Amino acid sequence: MKYPNSNKTYVKPNETTSNRGMSLEEDINKTNRYYLTNDIAVIYKKPTPITIVKVDYPKRSAAKITEAYFKLASTTDYNGIYLGKYIDFEAKECESKTSFPFSSIHSHQVKHLNDVLKHGAIAFIILRMTSYNKDFLIKASDFIDFYNSGKRKSISYAWILENGFEIEYSYQRPCDYLKVVKKVFKL
Amino acid sequence: MKYPNSNKTYVKPNETTSNRGMSLEEDINKTNRYYLTNDIAVIYKKPTPITIVKVDYPKRSAAKITEAYFKLASTTDYNGIYLGKYIDFEAKECESKTSFPFSSIHSHQVKHLNDVLKHGAIAFIILRMTSYNKDFLIKASDFIDFYNSGKRKSISYAWILENGFEIEYSYQRPCDYLKVVKKVFKL
Repeated sequence: MKYPNSNKTYVKPNETTSNRGMSLEEDINKTNRYYLTNDIAVIYKKPTPITIVKVDYPKRSAAKITEAYFKLASTTDYNGIYLGKYIDFEAKECESKTSFPFSSIHSHQVKHLNDVLKHGAIAFIILRMTSYNKDFLIKASDFIDFYNSGKRKSISYAWILENGFEIEYSYQRPCDYLKVVKKVFKL
Repeated sequence: MKYPNSNKTYVKPNETTSNRGMSLEEDINKTNRYYLTNDIAVIYKKPTPITIVKVDYPKRSAAKITEAYFKLASTTDYNGIYLGKYIDFEAKECESKTSFPFSSIHSHQVKHLNDVLKHGAIAFIILRMTSYNKDFLIKASDFIDFYNSGKRKSISYAWILENGFEIEYSYQRPCDYLKVVKKVFKL
């Protein structure tokens, strides 16, 4: 399955130190299942938004959608609850070694992060720098400050190293972001 | 647009006291837009989950999904944040005058409500009794207690009147459930 504007696939780097081999989305979904099964948190990816145009209703079988289109998401992809707190985040993979371009995040997703922050959410971005095989958590407030400053059209890897928080990998929790959330947001 | 197992449409009753004329989903979406625009809360309906089988990529135009199927939702339809609290609910319309059958809610939606409750969510069901043209908020904890008691396979209208909380209608907020949430959950 492919999504519009995204035919990138995550290629495992030749590093023996890493076991990461799936996409960031798959890693987060696996981690979320671990969190759910172990009563740590309830966090889900939202379904891909679709505009349905035509549906067939064949007798004795399931309704079949025969014409539909991808729709721009008005929110981030993930939300849920952890330690009584509303959690909201977007996850992105970045192939560049030097920077993450703002154009990779839609402006209404930034607006959404700002909206939920105003109401007390724990909001962030998970960024996978595929060239370095590293995942980072960036606080939405830090990201939005830099985004709104109008200084640049991307965030540099140096900025990410300075302002982001590295997320650990383990087999059961390939993107163990809540461990970072707990520490960074002092929960 | 129709969904599987649901070709019910909401018919406006002949009551001059009411201005409700849209489906419960439309009324909640309109109310949520009001909440968002007026900085009251950030609550969205999740997209309908779909399994995509075939996608065409015609040149110079948008990707077209040509085969897809409706998928059972693993969570409730709505969630978000209000007064710093994680909000989670399912919305259902009921045509019967006497009772709301448990079969209208999938068991994994009940499990999901139970999951989020354990983590401190404000969780509930919004039930529109179309015959009476009334909307009720039922606390997920009350619903689950009754559901798990195994006493009956539905909740009676009498039970709903006794345990539910009526939701007011207004033109701008056709299903003003947060007003009830604030009072019932003492926020």
